[in-house]
Amino acid sequence: MTDLYPENKRIQNYLFNIFRSISKKYGYEEIEPPILESAEIYKKSGQEIPEQMYSFKDKSSRLLALRPETTPSIARMINNKSLSLPIKWFSISRCFRYERTQAGRSKEFDQYNIDMIGSTSMQADAEIIKTLVEILKSLKLTKKDFFIRISNRKLIDDLLKSINITNIKQVSQLIDKKDKLQEKDFKLALKDLKLTNKQIQDLLKIIKISSLDKIKIESSGLTELKELFSYLKSYNILDYCKLDLSIMRGFDYYTSTVFEAFDTKKQFRAIAGGGRYDNLASFPGVGYGFGDRVILLLLENKLPKLEKQVDYYIAPVNKKIIPKAIQIAEKLRKTSTVELDLLNRNLSKQIKYASLITNNLIIVGEKDIKNKKVTLRDLKTGKEKKILISRL
Amino acid sequence: MTDLYPENKRIQNYLFNIFRSISKKYGYEEIEPPILESAEIYKKSGQEIPEQMYSFKDKSSRLLALRPETTPSIARMINNKSLSLPIKWFSISRCFRYERTQAGRSKEFDQYNIDMIGSTSMQADAEIIKTLVEILKSLKLTKKDFFIRISNRKLIDDLLKSINITNIKQVSQLIDKKDKLQEKDFKLALKDLKLTNKQIQDLLKIIKISSLDKIKIESSGLTELKELFSYLKSYNILDYCKLDLSIMRGFDYYTSTVFEAFDTKKQFRAIAGGGRYDNLASFPGVGYGFGDRVILLLLENKLPKLEKQVDYYIAPVNKKIIPKAIQIAEKLRKTSTVELDLLNRNLSKQIKYASLITNNLIIVGEKDIKNKKVTLRDLKTGKEKKILISRL
Repeated sequence: MTDLYPENKRIQNYLFNIFRSISKKYGYEEIEPPILESAEIYKKSGQEIPEQMYSFKDKSSRLLALRPETTPSIARMINNKSLSLPIKWFSISRCFRYERTQAGRSKEFDQYNIDMIGSTSMQADAEIIKTLVEILKSLKLTKKDFFIRISNRKLIDDLLKSINITNIKQVSQLIDKKDKLQEKDFKLALKDLKLTNKQIQDLLKIIKISSLDKIKIESSGLTELKELFSYLKSYNILDYCKLDLSIMRGFDYYTSTVFEAFDTKKQFRAIAGGGRYDNLASFPGVGYGFGDRVILLLLENKLPKLEKQVDYYIAPVNKKIIPKAIQIAEKLRKTSTVELDLLNRNLSKQIKYASLITNNLIIVGEKDIKNKKVTLRDLKTGKEKKILISRL
Repeated sequence: MTDLYPENKRIQNYLFNIFRSISKKYGYEEIEPPILESAEIYKKSGQEIPEQMYSFKDKSSRLLALRPETTPSIARMINNKSLSLPIKWFSISRCFRYERTQAGRSKEFDQYNIDMIGSTSMQADAEIIKTLVEILKSLKLTKKDFFIRISNRKLIDDLLKSINITNIKQVSQLIDKKDKLQEKDFKLALKDLKLTNKQIQDLLKIIKISSLDKIKIESSGLTELKELFSYLKSYNILDYCKLDLSIMRGFDYYTSTVFEAFDTKKQFRAIAGGGRYDNLASFPGVGYGFGDRVILLLLENKLPKLEKQVDYYIAPVNKKIIPKAIQIAEKLRKTSTVELDLLNRNLSKQIKYASLITNNLIIVGEKDIKNKKVTLRDLKTGKEKKILISRL
């Protein structure tokens, strides 16, 4: 991660506050697993993640990893304690992946996770997807900016079986990489996996299916997806959602629903991604991870102007009067944010600085103090008045 | 770190919110350095910390460390960028130290840091110490519970010189460990450092000095401490502060003021500790670190009762009515926190669960819905009324 200076941290907090407030609106509670985990819990995190993990042996020779993603820790936390259902959790967690730095990737990043555990109903999947849409809308993004691609692992498996594909895992992993390949290269790679031309043609049709009504096979995945879309309709977010059987999510632990949020211009990697994992923990679950890097790139021009602001700046006119200025500052701090000069600057320098961070300047001068007064200046209008300290 | 379940994370957030609100009251802004740092920046972090660091080589053979403390990162951030003064920063950062787990210590912990950079005035030290007192008071601790021990490195150096001690660094390191030793063993250790009996007697007197007026040597450290105490008086916190020339703080980068917050019963290690570091960064600075572990032990019985709470719980009476229930939940979520059943529980199970997390239960029944109504039950009094959905 790069250093977060105040101007960066303000933006991050703006994002985190939206994560927190949407999660709470839906009744989710914040949790936090540790950063250092036993490396072995990431065995089901697909191909990429274990390769990109920072891992090392500690002084007692345990193989530790810096958390590369959050879901396995959540599963561990659920298995370690007797909890009553539903478990509705969210977290904002630092994660680490060692990879060539590219747009929207960095070695150290923060990830928001939200998980609903204990329900097999597609209601849960719909609520989880709805929180994702709500977060993106709260960030002032519209359906012109993003959409959610949705699929179901059981359905794609059944569709691949229906055209007699047997090496389903390998083919799925290849489909997962499709967006990074030219169609020609994708076909060649399918051929390398021993698919016939007919199978390749069928497969290309399958991953382009855009409506569930066009699917004629029997599949519990199809039933789930239909149910999910009916709930997404109740949530009034069908406009943001799109069936896309080509998405896989790289993680081995997803068992059914999978989904990703993308920018419509497809300039970036997925903004967020998740799915249902019914076998990872002792209860079925559904959730997603949402990293802070891609969204900040996407938001670039949509971020609010966030500047340092305090309610008052207190300017003592000389060193002798500082004890009085301290008392005035402390009185105001009972209800306000207050900055007091600590650099012993002259008054004009103090005013120049104060005008960057507040509208309300209080000048503490020797003469005024004798009358138990200070000068309050409105830095926007330049208007001044004397005011009794007791009236502040 | 242990896993933070919702009940633990609520407490941590209570603590963090106090850190944040006091910092902002004094005009400090949040920043965040990365967790992975180059190991070499901790060379001035005293004896203990480099020994307890988690460090490892990454794939390009750089020696990295998991941040054991925050101040060196802050110094690096200040040196890396052209910043205008004053720099008033705070951070809440995960830190890592490998040590035998003992009360108030764990391998992974969170540390609050606050730093005022760019001023050599003791005003800055006083403001920083005041924020510490304010935080502890906000946590409902009183002067019966804690006090701040304050010293000055220059003064203790000058005092040691005044009794002709030459191996000042070694003697200081020993004084730092005094609290862990019997007086007898402390004296023996001083003897090992070649102090004469007279020097040992004088040294024992020095570290017991409780009033600055009793010090008769010339020392810029004495001048600073007198000034500091006069400002602490302006801040009205003399009652919480105590001169204690035996405190050192283990860090090599402190140059002048040093201070620690302690519980009055001395049951625990320091709650927080800091000091002035005028040579670590390109500007003089003063600040402290405040870990989350000791304070949570100390607060044990003083923590507020924090439970999961939502404004409304929505109970659909059967599966058919869920789409209607979703719409009602979404309407309320515009302004409220709302939990909707996702487990398809029967009504009595839903009510039992709802009563744990809210006072306001909304039952969505088929008959009511036909009249565009729902049942609103006050779970405290048991009173129910039918209410038009449009009036919710």
